Amino acid sequence: MKAVLISNPGNIELVERDIPEIKSRDEVLLKVRLAGICGSDMHIYHGTSPVATYPRIIGHEFVGEVVEKGKEVKNLKIGDKVVVEPIIYCGKCYPCRKGRPNVCENLKVMGVHVDGGFQEYVVVKDANVHKFADYLSWEEAVMIEPFTIAAQATWRGGVEKDDFVLIIGAGPIGLTILQYAKYKGAICIVSDIVDFRLEKALELGADYAIKASENIEKEIRKITGGMGVNIAIDAACTPKTFEMAVNVVSQAGRVVVLGFDTSPSSIPQFNITKGELTICGSRLQTNKFKEVIDVFNKRKLNPTALISHKFHFTEIKEAINLLEEGNQNVFKVILEF
Amino acid sequence: MKAVLISNPGNIELVERDIPEIKSRDEVLLKVRLAGICGSDMHIYHGTSPVATYPRIIGHEFVGEVVEKGKEVKNLKIGDKVVVEPIIYCGKCYPCRKGRPNVCENLKVMGVHVDGGFQEYVVVKDANVHKFADYLSWEEAVMIEPFTIAAQATWRGGVEKDDFVLIIGAGPIGLTILQYAKYKGAICIVSDIVDFRLEKALELGADYAIKASENIEKEIRKITGGMGVNIAIDAACTPKTFEMAVNVVSQAGRVVVLGFDTSPSSIPQFNITKGELTICGSRLQTNKFKEVIDVFNKRKLNPTALISHKFHFTEIKEAINLLEEGNQNVFKVILEF
Repeated sequence: MKAVLISNPGNIELVERDIPEIKSRDEVLLKVRLAGICGSDMHIYHGTSPVATYPRIIGHEFVGEVVEKGKEVKNLKIGDKVVVEPIIYCGKCYPCRKGRPNVCENLKVMGVHVDGGFQEYVVVKDANVHKFADYLSWEEAVMIEPFTIAAQATWRGGVEKDDFVLIIGAGPIGLTILQYAKYKGAICIVSDIVDFRLEKALELGADYAIKASENIEKEIRKITGGMGVNIAIDAACTPKTFEMAVNVVSQAGRVVVLGFDTSPSSIPQFNITKGELTICGSRLQTNKFKEVIDVFNKRKLNPTALISHKFHFTEIKEAINLLEEGNQNVFKVILEF
Repeated sequence: MKAVLISNPGNIELVERDIPEIKSRDEVLLKVRLAGICGSDMHIYHGTSPVATYPRIIGHEFVGEVVEKGKEVKNLKIGDKVVVEPIIYCGKCYPCRKGRPNVCENLKVMGVHVDGGFQEYVVVKDANVHKFADYLSWEEAVMIEPFTIAAQATWRGGVEKDDFVLIIGAGPIGLTILQYAKYKGAICIVSDIVDFRLEKALELGADYAIKASENIEKEIRKITGGMGVNIAIDAACTPKTFEMAVNVVSQAGRVVVLGFDTSPSSIPQFNITKGELTICGSRLQTNKFKEVIDVFNKRKLNPTALISHKFHFTEIKEAINLLEEGNQNVFKVILEF
């Protein structure tokens, strides 16, 4: 079989590998069907991921079917359509004990710290595999993992019905968060610097789409009658957007950051204390697969609207080139296996 | 009667006032017995409070007895010993609707935005008055309000049994937080720059007391076996201590800030996302009086250990001078009426 390997930063290649074998009773062998390319895959490619190790078969957003299973796997059968939860945790450290395995001290993410899903077959533990409804297409299902990120971000921000939510950045992550916040009943403002993306945000249900500019804080205050937004989710992940987020939230507001930029932002504690704000990191997800699959099975979202391009996985270099070009009409790019 | 008035920043004086009268059926007239001087009173005196207005009768930590009551006041009787919850809120804005009246958009704090408790008699709404057990001394009871601040900070930080908690600053606020975190079963590390205060922290139950230095982050990692503290509560409230707090918390850790310093801290989003940290403001308190009074009534804390000096309220200038001198053996200073 073939796999997509980043041997070291900047070098991506197709390599020949043996089909992996089940070695323990709780494992399953999956035939990968579709996989999504995430921003973090691009960071691993460029050597700008602060956590990845090399050489690495990348890919943490993937769906496939069960083709073989270990003796103790009871909840799955051959032919089941499944999505993989790509985190592996120790279960013993402080975050694990507190129900936050997504930030386990010994966390391994498939496609980042260990090999991932950009290969024709993959062996995973049954605990990392979730079934979804047969009637969902592979294109729908491949968006489950990105939507767990959105579910986590809206959970961390405590998004509730009728809350004003600002989503900064209308790329794939911002637009999944938009959809999930709308599903939760929030009033959503999306900001971006690209008109085309703002139009996409409006198509997907944004109540307001505003061009990022120096006046953005004033505009947000105006929309919210002076209050500010109750939650600002920064999917642009720059030092400046984080600062802006802290400035535009209401009293008792929440700010959610998802970025890995190591440059500092200037954050005065005055703002945090005065409004008794909560600033939360949101990383990966914790126990969100079942929730999101349930929403997908009920078809409450429009996940395929985010898929702009599809390549065969052997065309990985073309797919990466497309993403590198930064065209405004590129949202989610998926790979077929 | 006499009252302590700050007519404008830098000018504190005793003024003659009429005893206030009950004007509505839900009000009570209190004879003030004891009041505490808080750091924020000193900020109002110096004109460095970002929220106070002048002229102002200061004081928001005070206890007294009911001497008269309106017709609809059912839950109190003449002679009851009570503590005043000094916040007045609208009940209609976003934070009020979300159960966070302490950061009401129209918040008025007694002694800050409206007149407070440094006067011989005061009229307040019955909703702002809480009874405590008759057997508590006035000296114990005057510490109820400061301990509600500690209860809020530990609640915001999600302090649980066996958590490692770092309390930065062993002044009156840090030491109330220490006691409350110990009451909740946490393992407490206290840091300060003053040896005398660290000794006080150990007396009051700190598990570790460490001198603030450039090595403090290393020391904290050592104490916690590399993990970091699960919660850092910054009662020193400087831009640098806030930065330090973010650097010493564990994965899934929480940072609580209580400061009103408008100078920015340098906070990289990387740290917040990687550990999925939560940075919370903690301001005043919300629904914490009943909880704290219950703990006081059960005598689970050692509140009077924090009272270092007592003055008659007519000696307010001497009390303020003592606090200005910054002697290391000055903790809580209280006024008798």
